[in-house]
Amino acid sequence: MDNFRKYIHTYHYIPDGDWCLIEKEFEQVRFRKNEMILEEGAICRFFYFFEKGLVRFCCNVDGEDVTKMFCVAPYCFTSKVSFRNQTPAHESIQALDDCILWQITYDQYKKLEQINSWNIFMRKLLNEIQEFVENRLLESKVFTAEKNYENLLKRYPASLIHKIPLKYLASFLGVAPQSLSRIRNKLHHKH
Amino acid sequence: MDNFRKYIHTYHYIPDGDWCLIEKEFEQVRFRKNEMILEEGAICRFFYFFEKGLVRFCCNVDGEDVTKMFCVAPYCFTSKVSFRNQTPAHESIQALDDCILWQITYDQYKKLEQINSWNIFMRKLLNEIQEFVENRLLESKVFTAEKNYENLLKRYPASLIHKIPLKYLASFLGVAPQSLSRIRNKLHHKH
Repeated sequence: MDNFRKYIHTYHYIPDGDWCLIEKEFEQVRFRKNEMILEEGAICRFFYFFEKGLVRFCCNVDGEDVTKMFCVAPYCFTSKVSFRNQTPAHESIQALDDCILWQITYDQYKKLEQINSWNIFMRKLLNEIQEFVENRLLESKVFTAEKNYENLLKRYPASLIHKIPLKYLASFLGVAPQSLSRIRNKLHHKH
Repeated sequence: MDNFRKYIHTYHYIPDGDWCLIEKEFEQVRFRKNEMILEEGAICRFFYFFEKGLVRFCCNVDGEDVTKMFCVAPYCFTSKVSFRNQTPAHESIQALDDCILWQITYDQYKKLEQINSWNIFMRKLLNEIQEFVENRLLESKVFTAEKNYENLLKRYPASLIHKIPLKYLASFLGVAPQSLSRIRNKLHHKH
């Protein structure tokens, strides 16, 4: 849990007293590579601190598996709408690598809302996620798939990008796998 | 301000005592069609309740004017990141029709955060906006411009869509104006 506190401190300082209350609520869970953390249609029961690994958020659109986004540890995630309303999720979450997570239930999450330093951390985190999603929307609108792929390579280490199967990366970028192969070859010859 | 209270009540009930505190902070402002409410690079000083009209959010990407989204009254808006941090905005907000707005400053916004019913309304509103942006990201990824245009027509009255200049609609959909003209003609002959 030390990693979690360090991670939270990049947003907001948590005093020792508050940390004791937060820490005792979280329980460790592990998922193996390719395991489903959440299945579309099920209720997302947990909010996670994501200590180690890589996951993807995806959903089924007219029979097609669409990758909405990736999440890289350390970070926090849940299926927001499903968790917030405790209703069936419109997305799945899949481990793309062996993952270590720390989970709390909805009731525990509500309990932590009584802690002011936690609320400030959460507000900053949610703001960051919102900015991130808005930027993604803008980028997907104004840039080509090639440019978006280059941005991905700038943002994350190549070792991490190479853990993501080509078909998921292509779906994230909104192109066919063959098109992403061509983009990769082109960039490989350019550099 | 009655319209504002009615609008808030679609999210959360505001007791009379709280409403007195909220109402007195807001000041009416009007913008004429095509006027800029916020210029990219300026600090967004206000949070707005949007009583009447239509606006677009846009930004400059490599010299090109890109329409990020539209907002239709009644709603609330601000340039979130700029307002929250009181830093220069990375987007502009333009009135596309004569608009009636009610504004509060950042300090007034902070003052209202002491009112619990207001906070619940704001949290629900921000959650709604976040879901909206995430859905837009998914739609822009998986649907064609034609399908996205059809969805827009289902979501809003045609009279409103026709108030939006073609070039802004095309930019919002991520296609050239000529492509949107072709889509319009095709749909016109289909129905």
